[in-house]
Amino acid sequence: MNTTARSKKAAPIWLFFPPPQKRSPKSSNLPPSGAGTGLSGGALARTGGLMIVFARMNRILSIDPENQRAVVQPGVVNFDLTLAAEPHGLYFAPDPSSQKSCTIGGNVAENAGGPHTLAYGVTTNHVTALELVLPDGEIVRVGSTQGDAPGYDLTGLFVGSEGTLALVTEITVRLSPKPEAVKTLLAIFDSVDDAAETVVDVTARAIIPAACEMLDGWTLRVVEDFVHAGFPRDSAAVLLLEVEGLAEAVAGQAAAITEACNAHRARKVRVARDNAERELLWKGRKNAFGALGRLAPSNYVLDGVIPRTKLPQALRRIREIGHRYGFDIANIFHAGDGNLHPIVLYDPRDKGQFERAMQASAEIIRYCVEAGGALTGEHGIGMEKAELMPLLFSDADFDLMRRVHDAFNPACLLNPGKIFPLSKGCGEIRLRAKSSAHVSVA
Amino acid sequence: MNTTARSKKAAPIWLFFPPPQKRSPKSSNLPPSGAGTGLSGGALARTGGLMIVFARMNRILSIDPENQRAVVQPGVVNFDLTLAAEPHGLYFAPDPSSQKSCTIGGNVAENAGGPHTLAYGVTTNHVTALELVLPDGEIVRVGSTQGDAPGYDLTGLFVGSEGTLALVTEITVRLSPKPEAVKTLLAIFDSVDDAAETVVDVTARAIIPAACEMLDGWTLRVVEDFVHAGFPRDSAAVLLLEVEGLAEAVAGQAAAITEACNAHRARKVRVARDNAERELLWKGRKNAFGALGRLAPSNYVLDGVIPRTKLPQALRRIREIGHRYGFDIANIFHAGDGNLHPIVLYDPRDKGQFERAMQASAEIIRYCVEAGGALTGEHGIGMEKAELMPLLFSDADFDLMRRVHDAFNPACLLNPGKIFPLSKGCGEIRLRAKSSAHVSVA
Repeated sequence: MNTTARSKKAAPIWLFFPPPQKRSPKSSNLPPSGAGTGLSGGALARTGGLMIVFARMNRILSIDPENQRAVVQPGVVNFDLTLAAEPHGLYFAPDPSSQKSCTIGGNVAENAGGPHTLAYGVTTNHVTALELVLPDGEIVRVGSTQGDAPGYDLTGLFVGSEGTLALVTEITVRLSPKPEAVKTLLAIFDSVDDAAETVVDVTARAIIPAACEMLDGWTLRVVEDFVHAGFPRDSAAVLLLEVEGLAEAVAGQAAAITEACNAHRARKVRVARDNAERELLWKGRKNAFGALGRLAPSNYVLDGVIPRTKLPQALRRIREIGHRYGFDIANIFHAGDGNLHPIVLYDPRDKGQFERAMQASAEIIRYCVEAGGALTGEHGIGMEKAELMPLLFSDADFDLMRRVHDAFNPACLLNPGKIFPLSKGCGEIRLRAKSSAHVSVA
Repeated sequence: MNTTARSKKAAPIWLFFPPPQKRSPKSSNLPPSGAGTGLSGGALARTGGLMIVFARMNRILSIDPENQRAVVQPGVVNFDLTLAAEPHGLYFAPDPSSQKSCTIGGNVAENAGGPHTLAYGVTTNHVTALELVLPDGEIVRVGSTQGDAPGYDLTGLFVGSEGTLALVTEITVRLSPKPEAVKTLLAIFDSVDDAAETVVDVTARAIIPAACEMLDGWTLRVVEDFVHAGFPRDSAAVLLLEVEGLAEAVAGQAAAITEACNAHRARKVRVARDNAERELLWKGRKNAFGALGRLAPSNYVLDGVIPRTKLPQALRRIREIGHRYGFDIANIFHAGDGNLHPIVLYDPRDKGQFERAMQASAEIIRYCVEAGGALTGEHGIGMEKAELMPLLFSDADFDLMRRVHDAFNPACLLNPGKIFPLSKGCGEIRLRAKSSAHVSVA
């Protein structure tokens, strides 16, 4: 969004921890910070500087199945922890769509969510302790392996601070027991409004599915062509719903969800018959962003939040904004918690298109905030949304955040230009001290 | 625990917000801060000073049933919010045993828990936004009514900060849908070990009951004499277990729990037949502290946390410590999350007994920490455990917490002598500036 800042950017220097023993072609290709899968630019060196890359600190240090805890280094890939916990009947609940490549350190920095956030919360709900390196080199620990730590909730403060307060070098996470039974339902609708109303109704019935994802017609068609997951090409929207728990519970919840779908004119509700069909449905969902590459040379994924009850209006408004700017906007998102991911399809080689895409996107995010929502659900602020923060925060709010920032990182050594708009954060300090080294992390 | 500090204490001055219109005998009896039900002394003016009493700021400002939110003033009594939300099929999940008298402001200050913490978490998991008054008089807002607020998690930081960072003047909370069905089970055991092993087994079976409470023989006998809840007087321990959700789910979970109880030699497992019987069982649990007054002139309620898997050892150790110091120690606690409440029964008129009771208590808390647990689960640090904090935190840890403290309350105006041991926190500053006014809140 901040195109002028890009041209000023100096090439960053990368540091690897631990340093590579020998430089194989593979290692020199390692992406910055964690895995670099973030969607808000948290791991980019906005004003140049020094990158600290944690991809090699990728050891799972311990798994304690009895107390359902694991201790990991920040470079551990999210899904690798679930694989390691599997023999104990456990898994790591936060599941970003990038979970097979993103790292837990990055999840901590951005407080990442995923499709199952609806039932299990975001990363902060699964982190109990951290080892940190402060800008002055001091190594400290916050949190507790058991229960909530007494005193200030510093663990909660550092999770989601996007590398602006400290470097995270060790993470203690909660592991969750794998449910006895899982049912995945695909509900097919002839109208987007009906699908959206169903989501409102399901939660009003006091059912909390483990996941409740929506794909609109644009998205489901291109995903179907690519994955062959069985999404009918002529439908207007599908809901992918998952319920988990004891077998009896799951059967009851699946029946209640089916009833809600039928009450809103679902064309069909299909329950995945086996694990293979379940995985196919999820493959369709998790690969949707990639599949959209078939529709346009590029796309811009937004991350707005609206009150769940305003879902039908919000989708109509997004369609209207798309029409006005001349874009197709695909929608694939976490419907259950009102976390929208409108995807503006555009051609970046056309400078006019690029600028209109950014304008349309800003208008959508502004609408989310006005509707009583927020400008990010799970991707973080990074550099992408730093300049939009004043939509949500006043000068007094920034002052409050700055007090916390300056308590740990007063000289703006860590990840300047993130979270805070340049004018309210470390931007001015940066201008005064252009030559000093900076460290950027996720 | 800090008896010498008490004698030095100056009588505090109380301020009421809003100021009383006329002084009725009732209003001049209002307890300090919120309702003054806290168990760690967070609302006491440890070094004298000025008390700000929020008991009159007791209005529920709004209830938004669709988005499951309420906005309340800090003096609203916890259970009054649940009563107000009931017509919408909603309730406020945190349920301290004092819920019919404690205030939500106090719950926020101490990050209070309750029997249903096991399934629904402590207060911080149900607060989404706060209005705050900083020591310099500035009014600020943190958090968001929808989802997680972007940027630093300041709401999480202020919840549980025990009035040491800011005054909380408005609270936005999450309301939860009332479950379709509830089953309450009473499992009766002839041995404490069997009851403790059952708790470990229930969670190992991936069942998360909504509540899992344990009462030992001492407690259940005195409760039975008082409440007549049907706890057999000759049993060694009872578990009070509750499962909630859809009717089908609840039936399945109750069956699985019964199986676990029987596998550990439960004498009997009884399911409450109706709401009246359910409420009677809970009345026994929630009035247990009061009933213990029949056994000894006073008692000291501890609040240690241990890893759940160490429950059987911990109970044996507590019994052994009691024997050694010559005390009966009753146990009634949140077994499911390893949050112990050993209750040392003693006579405070006997100075030797008082001192031995404090020593026995400190030994129990030290054991909890050594076992990998923590020194508070839900009652907060307050002044009670401030001097025990070094068991868990190093000087570097205190320095980290002080950075946060000083970012908001650098002059130690708010609630000095809480959370931090006197030597590490505001104690020294207080000694230097004895005459200045202080504000104590919960």
